[in-house]
Amino acid sequence: MAADPAPFVALYTDFGNDDPWVGELKASLWSVQPQFKILDMTHAIPAHDVTSGAFELFRGSRHLPPWTINIGVVDPGVGGPRRPIMVITENGYFIGPDNGLFSYIYLHDEVHKVLHLTSSHYFRQPVSATFHARDVFAPIAGWLSKGIDSAKLGDEIEDFVRLPVPVDKMVGESLVKGEVRVVDRFGNLVTNIRQATLDELSQKSGKTKFRALVAGHEMPFVQEGGYSQDHQLFALINSSGLVEIACFSKPASEVLGVGKGKDVGVMVE
Amino acid sequence: MAADPAPFVALYTDFGNDDPWVGELKASLWSVQPQFKILDMTHAIPAHDVTSGAFELFRGSRHLPPWTINIGVVDPGVGGPRRPIMVITENGYFIGPDNGLFSYIYLHDEVHKVLHLTSSHYFRQPVSATFHARDVFAPIAGWLSKGIDSAKLGDEIEDFVRLPVPVDKMVGESLVKGEVRVVDRFGNLVTNIRQATLDELSQKSGKTKFRALVAGHEMPFVQEGGYSQDHQLFALINSSGLVEIACFSKPASEVLGVGKGKDVGVMVE
Amino acid sequence: MAADPAPFVALYTDFGNDDPWVGELKASLWSVQPQFKILDMTHAIPAHDVTSGAFELFRGSRHLPPWTINIGVVDPGVGGPRRPIMVITENGYFIGPDNGLFSYIYLHDEVHKVLHLTSSHYFRQPVSATFHARDVFAPIAGWLSKGIDSAKLGDEIEDFVRLPVPVDKMVGESLVKGEVRVVDRFGNLVTNIRQATLDELSQKSGKTKFRALVAGHEMPFVQEGGYSQDHQLFALINSSGLVEIACFSKPASEVLGVGKGKDVGVMVE
Repeated sequence: MAADPAPFVALYTDFGNDDPWVGELKASLWSVQPQFKILDMTHAIPAHDVTSGAFELFRGSRHLPPWTINIGVVDPGVGGPRRPIMVITENGYFIGPDNGLFSYIYLHDEVHKVLHLTSSHYFRQPVSATFHARDVFAPIAGWLSKGIDSAKLGDEIEDFVRLPVPVDKMVGESLVKGEVRVVDRFGNLVTNIRQATLDELSQKSGKTKFRALVAGHEMPFVQEGGYSQDHQLFALINSSGLVEIACFSKPASEVLGVGKGKDVGVMVE
Repeated sequence: MAADPAPFVALYTDFGNDDPWVGELKASLWSVQPQFKILDMTHAIPAHDVTSGAFELFRGSRHLPPWTINIGVVDPGVGGPRRPIMVITENGYFIGPDNGLFSYIYLHDEVHKVLHLTSSHYFRQPVSATFHARDVFAPIAGWLSKGIDSAKLGDEIEDFVRLPVPVDKMVGESLVKGEVRVVDRFGNLVTNIRQATLDELSQKSGKTKFRALVAGHEMPFVQEGGYSQDHQLFALINSSGLVEIACFSKPASEVLGVGKGKDVGVMVE
Repeated sequence: MAADPAPFVALYTDFGNDDPWVGELKASLWSVQPQFKILDMTHAIPAHDVTSGAFELFRGSRHLPPWTINIGVVDPGVGGPRRPIMVITENGYFIGPDNGLFSYIYLHDEVHKVLHLTSSHYFRQPVSATFHARDVFAPIAGWLSKGIDSAKLGDEIEDFVRLPVPVDKMVGESLVKGEVRVVDRFGNLVTNIRQATLDELSQKSGKTKFRALVAGHEMPFVQEGGYSQDHQLFALINSSGLVEIACFSKPASEVLGVGKGKDVGVMVE
């Protein structure tokens, strides 16, 4: 593109869509930055569930443009001492509460720095005790998109909160272990096992044929067009770069009778 | 801002998000005014429930910019004799059916005038019998945002419909009575008791310490950071300027076993 | 309008709003065409239900501007051999999988041509196996809106897939038969009987008074303002130009005890 790209902001919240909060948040964003293209990634994170929110921020942000400002709001401690922060990574900006919501980002992305957002003259005034998305995170996103130097927004910190979120792990040289993190609308089982980890497994083992293991079942990985048999279970790398268990013409969650938290393995042979 | 601010339009409907109406309404808005920033405040008002819609219009519009055009659509009488109207206030514009949907606005905001929208040459033609949001309210919002004189859109009226909606009331000099109007996604109890009424109570009584009373329970008002004890009930002024009953780490609605319509008191001492 | 109208894109999917796919789809649209006005027509089509999706694409697109690009995504065969296509009609553009999703469009609109989208250099690379909405349909919509010649996007085809979707039919010269296709949020019964078919019935019969028949009940057609009696059933031409069965102050679906698939007749007399 010749001109500067349009500024993108992506929202991941536990607000739902019935109350007026998403609308108020957008009003706050567009009041500072009328050019924002706003992406509603999800507003259906279970209320106050920071660990689920952390995974939604991870899987949703994999394929957004690198200048995207991601705002995450699962914020049971709003109004208390928890800090508002901004995480600057190779893969975009992340703004939200310092409660572990960015734990997957810290683990899997290259983090340039984490700022405690202290420059309250950029906040929407007066700042309410309960709605920092509207009064703190949104205006900061707006000013950032207008080109303000991030160093003016706060002070770099190292002691940001990392939650022990479930991640994929290599076990020996032929197995990766992970778990189901989301059952999607189609009954597909989205896991925390990453393409990058499978690539590492291939490199170490010199082998490239994978099989997935869930609940006593083994299933092949398929490429395009390979999954045409009714009720056949299979695994694939999904559009977020994560291992997913699916089934042709039926929800995999029903066929396997499993859900969030279930162990998943991937073997190379 | 040096330039004119972007035109904002805020939507409050009982349309849900499954049918194509919200999309068609936005097409109609952007056809007249491509610059509109559209805020989906809620599309989850219970079908045909004008009183609930009136409260959503009130709480949602408290903190939007004053040039916002609010469109309210809970319209069981569409196609019948009820009039399309526009309410001009200190706090923004309100467009919708004259069925009481703006009753809280009439009571609590400074209303400059109410217009019966009669200038049908500004409507989308032909006007359907069942979808005035798309064919009447949206194009009027568009023309208004383009700077047309509101006097050209219709005739001022005084006999607009006011519903007897539940409002907060001072009882003597130490008590305000109201009720729960919304149980939000977190189980918080949003009441119709306004900050302004508490301020009045303080002025009259000379006292500033408040306590809330619900279902035989008394609870303190907290400021930022004060609510850190598990399962503790407390009251606060929420981000819409309304008294809200909440509970740390549990839905207040469950802890108290109460919902919409429940009496709430606030005492000053 | 003096200037070119803003480019409109309308989305009809079975994605729901909980997973990040709608957000990613919008990021892909705006990455190519930052001027897009995006209309979320529905994301609630039942998962993988192509026939229901076909009807949603039909009813939703009746009153959008003719330059609208409609993207339909109910795509159980994504990643397999099914082709990505674009349908160019008098009533807008339609982009999606060649699985029958545009069957009502083929039957009821004037179709100029159907293209197999083969110009993969316009796709988002790499193209995932499971998310062609993001990687194929959205970028194609973007380039189309920027004025690229549609002939450069693919090759014209004639053997596109037509599903046997339920349509309205004249039976003799005084009756049209159809069926309920959607029960909307208000319990109204939206049928597949079109205004155009009733017009044809009038022309052939020389008569203009219609009555609807559903589940042993007969009901009149009403114009604006005629339906004011509680619990009275009636028929009307809805805002999409389709016959709809409604009831004053109660859901027609409950009063009649019927739902999707139920036969509906319209007689002229």
